[in-house]
Parts: sequence; structure tokens; C-alpha cells
Amino acid sequence: MTQIERARKGKITSKMKKVASFEGLSGEFIAKGVSEGSIVIPSSRLRKTEKLCGIGEGLRTKVNANIGTSPGHDNTGYEIKKLEIATKAGADTVMDLSTGRHMKRTRRAILERSRIPVGTVPIYEVASMAFEKRTGLGDITTGDILDCLNGQALEGVDFFTIHAGVTRNAVKILFEEGRLMDIVSRGGAILANWMLTTGMENPLYEHFDDVLEISKRYDITLSLGDGMRPGCIKDAGDGAQIEELVTLGQLAKRAKAKGVQAMIEGPGHVPINEIETNVRMEKSLCDNAPFYVLGPLVTDIASGYDHITAAIGGAIAAASGADFLCYVTPSEHLRLPSAQDVKEGVIASKIAAHAADIAKHVKDAGKVDDMISRARKERDWETQLKLSIDPSKSRSLRKSSKPLVKDVCTMCDRYCALKIFDEITKKAKTP
Amino acid sequence: MTQIERARKGKITSKMKKVASFEGLSGEFIAKGVSEGSIVIPSSRLRKTEKLCGIGEGLRTKVNANIGTSPGHDNTGYEIKKLEIATKAGADTVMDLSTGRHMKRTRRAILERSRIPVGTVPIYEVASMAFEKRTGLGDITTGDILDCLNGQALEGVDFFTIHAGVTRNAVKILFEEGRLMDIVSRGGAILANWMLTTGMENPLYEHFDDVLEISKRYDITLSLGDGMRPGCIKDAGDGAQIEELVTLGQLAKRAKAKGVQAMIEGPGHVPINEIETNVRMEKSLCDNAPFYVLGPLVTDIASGYDHITAAIGGAIAAASGADFLCYVTPSEHLRLPSAQDVKEGVIASKIAAHAADIAKHVKDAGKVDDMISRARKERDWETQLKLSIDPSKSRSLRKSSKPLVKDVCTMCDRYCALKIFDEITKKAKTP
Repeated sequence: MTQIERARKGKITSKMKKVASFEGLSGEFIAKGVSEGSIVIPSSRLRKTEKLCGIGEGLRTKVNANIGTSPGHDNTGYEIKKLEIATKAGADTVMDLSTGRHMKRTRRAILERSRIPVGTVPIYEVASMAFEKRTGLGDITTGDILDCLNGQALEGVDFFTIHAGVTRNAVKILFEEGRLMDIVSRGGAILANWMLTTGMENPLYEHFDDVLEISKRYDITLSLGDGMRPGCIKDAGDGAQIEELVTLGQLAKRAKAKGVQAMIEGPGHVPINEIETNVRMEKSLCDNAPFYVLGPLVTDIASGYDHITAAIGGAIAAASGADFLCYVTPSEHLRLPSAQDVKEGVIASKIAAHAADIAKHVKDAGKVDDMISRARKERDWETQLKLSIDPSKSRSLRKSSKPLVKDVCTMCDRYCALKIFDEITKKAKTP
Repeated sequence: MTQIERARKGKITSKMKKVASFEGLSGEFIAKGVSEGSIVIPSSRLRKTEKLCGIGEGLRTKVNANIGTSPGHDNTGYEIKKLEIATKAGADTVMDLSTGRHMKRTRRAILERSRIPVGTVPIYEVASMAFEKRTGLGDITTGDILDCLNGQALEGVDFFTIHAGVTRNAVKILFEEGRLMDIVSRGGAILANWMLTTGMENPLYEHFDDVLEISKRYDITLSLGDGMRPGCIKDAGDGAQIEELVTLGQLAKRAKAKGVQAMIEGPGHVPINEIETNVRMEKSLCDNAPFYVLGPLVTDIASGYDHITAAIGGAIAAASGADFLCYVTPSEHLRLPSAQDVKEGVIASKIAAHAADIAKHVKDAGKVDDMISRARKERDWETQLKLSIDPSKSRSLRKSSKPLVKDVCTMCDRYCALKIFDEITKKAKTP
């Protein structure tokens, strides 16, 4: 039985207990969320994950880091380094998006080493076979796709991104309405290319029951991919995007009915004033399935700094109810990220997630803020550095610049507001 | 006559015309905003500023960079370097917050070199005199303060931060309600210390008419400082903060009546879900005076990355109607910022400001986004790098990582979604 099926029978599994303990919530709460589909626990039956996580309503906002090779940058060892850096920086899950020739080797290495859940986008591997054979994407068969899903499932992948919402109708709407950037999702583009070549319907949509069958066997969580996500501010919220979301809502309900956990992927590039609407729409159309947002990026101009652009969008999305943030690195739109980019991307997303958790009153979210602030007030540097999001960076910045007065910092030195105020209140008997 | 007085007489000054041309708006619109107090143009009568800016309703969100020395880091040349870096990165104004022994020299150098408006916090210089004389802050006299204001006015400062809202009553409320971090504003702490020592009312409040007199003489814009701003998430939105805001609203109206331009400084540290309320409250209490926010920081845990924390809060504030963002650097809470920190701080705030401008439909705000996205779609790298927020960083990231296929990037290489989709749509006659 899958997690959902067991939750429905009133069972609180050991995985649910682990999640409950991390969140400081009851096992009953987690089981109820899983049974209703508002919480997922991405965790294959085949893999032992050291650090499980729950994603969904009432839980802390989680962060995913994308790693993986690309055709000209096919170094498994370097991706393992990124895995380690992402995990250390606090990523809750990783996705292996490898498209390099040795993608299998890289994926297996990541699955073997990862202490956190691992997701993949199997259609990349299917496409790679077509590329390797120098046949067109149109030669891909449904059998190829299901074989690949089965193969990756057997390796222990915890969650699959499945672009089953990129239907012929969604593509038709895209052409009718017109778009500045058309399709920016790799999975979406591969499937649209396939449909336009063959004249047939998206095989992941047509054979969604088979996808569910495989997912159910290994209790793999489905991440219903947004192949029609807007790739720029101008394309946000158009017909193609929303048509796909309607379909994803239907698919999420089919998954739930079958006992398969599902979450929904969301945009993309979205102006600030449209983010909350996106989140509410997803919750409404998809029966409160967890929302996994990619960014969203709130402007298109900031290549080199898109971890910041994504932190703005991610914080607003999560504060509005999104549950899971896919990080974006400073290298987005420019190159495959470096290991340092991975660290910066995870930390920016963690800041967004944490700030959102304070805003949506997630249990105990502001506790560490208060501890740091108390230490800051008391000029207890060791505590505030130790509890900060990246103690090593905080420590090195502080060390680099020595104040004249020991317990303050070089921003203000003797003009430290905290100290000036403390001095007088300690002096004045009746303040 | 001041800008306000001339606007009231229906005059569109050359400064207003410059601002109008930059914004792509009519001179009438700017003059109306200035006359009503919803727009300010910080610009001393005595200084010729190459790049003026308007701040307020209907205009692009502006960004301020704080620079200046501190007691142990008193290097004028390095602050001039920061000035140049901040200006190049796109700061619209700078504030010289120097507290080093040679603060006069630093200020004069900044005023001489700056091509953008310069603001100061004169109470720092007043406090420095007390510190130098080794007398207590309580020995400061009203005469000292007004002399200092006059002196800085004569040097050509464009805007003054004046903490006139830190009244005895606001401090009383702070003590009654209790706070985790008390006062974190240097100006606020100096004045609170003075009031608690002398038992008298805040001289900037008591002698606000004299402050207005000096400001009017040189057409200096007042930035009504928030000495009671919350220094941590927990203190946000408390009685002391709002009491001060009520006072600032009254003072802004007095300034406007006297023909002196005024804007209002705002928090600070604020949870995401309270930011919009802060902005609306300011607009309502202060008769739509421009709102100048310091951050706000949406969590207390991110020292080392507080430019990101501030970009999140600043974007939400500006999208809700705030007009002017004070940058925060990665060194906030840790040390006086380095020149590199200044650059990162300005760019993070510029991203926030720009994203907010798209959200609040500022004229032509999304135009450059569309140009970049079109170039991205066409894999026209030169255009997208050139138009990005920091062309040199974008260019160096792109250069560092060579794709196998020339017109894409190493993130996806031959799996580039744009290219895969283009190939099929170019092939298919009737897509």
C-alpha cells in the first residue's frame, strides 16, 4: 500500500511520524494531509532516505535544488559536489536534471549518495536516446517512455516530474493567443515537438494510467510539470498556462483516487501582482495539492542575480500558500550553475521560505529570529553568528572588520544604537 | 520660492521638467504631485545635481545607497569609491552617514563629487561633537542642532533625515509595551538618550518650525526619520512605531503647509504579511507623502545575505505603494560595507524596485523585460547581455562556460527548450 492508502486506513506510518517530528506537529495531522492530498512525502519504497520531508499545507516551506550535467559539462563528480553543497546549505530535496551523455551514471551516483529525496524528469532520458540514435524526437514511442519510467523507478527515484498537461489543446491555445517566448520548459518543448511531428496526443496524458501504475508500485510522488509555464513576464497567466493548470488539476485528482501522491508545478516568470492569484488558482483547481513553484521570477532583466529575483517571487508565493520552492541560481539564463552558485541559490530560497513561514504562521517559524534578535540586542555575537543562516559567511564578514569598541560592529562602532540606548536605560532608575 | 511654492503657482520648474522627461511623464503631472506633496524632488537650491530624481506616486521606485565612514574606518577616499560604485550600479541618491572623526571632510568630498542627490543625518554630527568633547549626549543644546543643520545646509545637502517623531510619548509607549530590541535607529537612540537624560522633549520636535525655516531657505527636502522603527520581526507594528508614524504624519502636513518637501521613513524589520498594511497606513496618516522604506527585512536570520532579505521586503513594499527603497548590503548587522557590498546592495534594491514598478504599472516599466525576453527567445546573446541589470557580470558568467551548440547556453545545450520548439514550428507549415 502507498502512503496515501495507509493514511486513509488511519495508519500513521513511520515516514509520517518522521515528518511530524521534524515539523513539531502530530502524526494525525500529517496522515490527514496525506490522505486528503494536501501533503506529500516524496519517498520511493525502494530508497532509504536519511532526511525525509513533507511538503504541503501547514508545513514549513521546502526548497529544492536542481543539479545535474549537460551535454558539454558531463562531470559526475562535480554534480556530487553540488549535491553535498546543496544538502549542507539546507536543500530539502534535489532534482537530477542531467542531460549529459553519462546521465545514468550521474543519476545513480546521486541516488546512492543523497541523504535527501531525489527527483528526476524522465522525459530527458527518453529524449537523449532519440538524440543519441540521431533519430528525431518524433520517433519516441510510448513504450520508450514507460520503459524509462520503470527503469528510473527501479533505481529508487523519489519523485518524477511528468509533463502530462502539455496537451494538444494547450499547444493549440498557445498558437492561437501567441506568446513572446513560446515554450521554455525542456520537457514541454520535447513533448510539443513530438505532438507537432506525429500529430498525436501527449503520450504522458494518453497513458497517464500507466504512469500512475508505475508510480503506485514504488510509491513515487508525481510532480505534475508545467510545460506551458511562462518564460517571461509578458506571457504570465495566459490561456496556455491556465489550460494546462486545469488539466493538471484533473490529473492530480486521478492520482489521488489511485492512491498516488501528487503535487503541481507552477510558474515561472510572473509579475508580483499576479503571484497570489496563481497560488489561489492552483489550490482551487487542484484540490489543495501542494504547489511547487519554479521561482517565480518577478522580472526578466536580472540575469546574474536571478537567485534574488526568485527569492522575491518565491517569498511572495510561499506567503500566499505555495509549499515548495525550486531554487534559481545566479547563473540562470546564462550557464550550468557552479557549485558556489548552488550554495547561493539554496540560501536565497531558504531565506524566502523562512520569511514566508513567518508570514503564514507556520509553527515556531519566528523562534530562531527571536533568539538571534535577543542575542543582537545583548551584543552576544557568538550566538547571533552561530544561529544565522550561513554561520561561516557571517563569521568571516564580522572577522574581516574589527571595531574600536569590542561588543559592537564597524557599521556604527560607538554610535551603536543598541548600546547608546542601553547605557541610558541602565543609568536611569525610572526610565 | 521652493519647488512646492512654485508648483502651487502653476509653475513647472526646470527641475520638474528634468524629472518629467526621465519618467516619460508630463511636467504638469510632476508639478501637481509636488504641489500636493505626493512627489518630492530632493535638490538643494545651492547644489547643481547632474542627475535629479523625483520620488513619489506614479514615478519609478527609487533606490538610495548609504555610504560613509565609521569611527575606526575613517577613509574618505574609500567612501568616494563607494559613491562611484553606487552611482554606476544605478543608485538614485546616496546618504552620507559618516561618523568617523573626519566626517566633515568626507561629507564635503561626497557633496563635491556626487552626480546624484545627497542626504545626511545631521544629528550624527551633533552627537560626534558631544563625543569629541567627552561630554554626555545630554549636553547637546538646541543651538548645537540648529547650527549643525545650518552648516550642512550651506554645504549643499539635498535632503536631511530628521528624527522629530521620537517624542517623549513614543518612548513612554516603548517602555510600557516592552520591546525585544528597543531602539535600533542611531538617531532615535541619540535623541531618546538625550530626552531621558534631560527630561525634556525632543528638540527636533519642539523646534520643528526652525528646522522648517532652514529647510525652506535652501529648499532642502525633509526625510522624517523613523527612530522607533522595529529592529526585529517581533517588534514590528507595535505602539511605539505607530505612535511615531502618527506624529510624522502631522509633521509632514506642517512641512507641506510651509512649502517644504517631506517624505516619511519606514521600517525596518517587518514580516511579509504586515508590509502592505504598513504602506497603506503611511499613505493614509501622512497624506500620501512619499514613503521611504529601510528594507524592510522580512526575517532576522540572514546576516551575510540581508541584501536579499531587503529585496524581498522592498519589492513587496514598493509594489504596495512605497516610493523609495533604502538599500541594505550583505554586511548589514556585521560590519561597515565594502565597496563590493555597496554594488550588491544597490543591484538587489534595483531588482526589487524594478519588479515593483512592473507590478504597479509604472509607465513603460516592463519594456526592457520584453526586449530582453525577445532577445532570449531569438538567442540573441549580445542584446540580452547588454540590456541586463549588470552587463559585466552577465557577460562574465556566459563567457566562463562554453556550450557545444553556439547559440544556446550550457544549462541545456542541445536540450534548449526554445531551440527544440523553434525547430519544429519552423518545420511545420501549419503548426
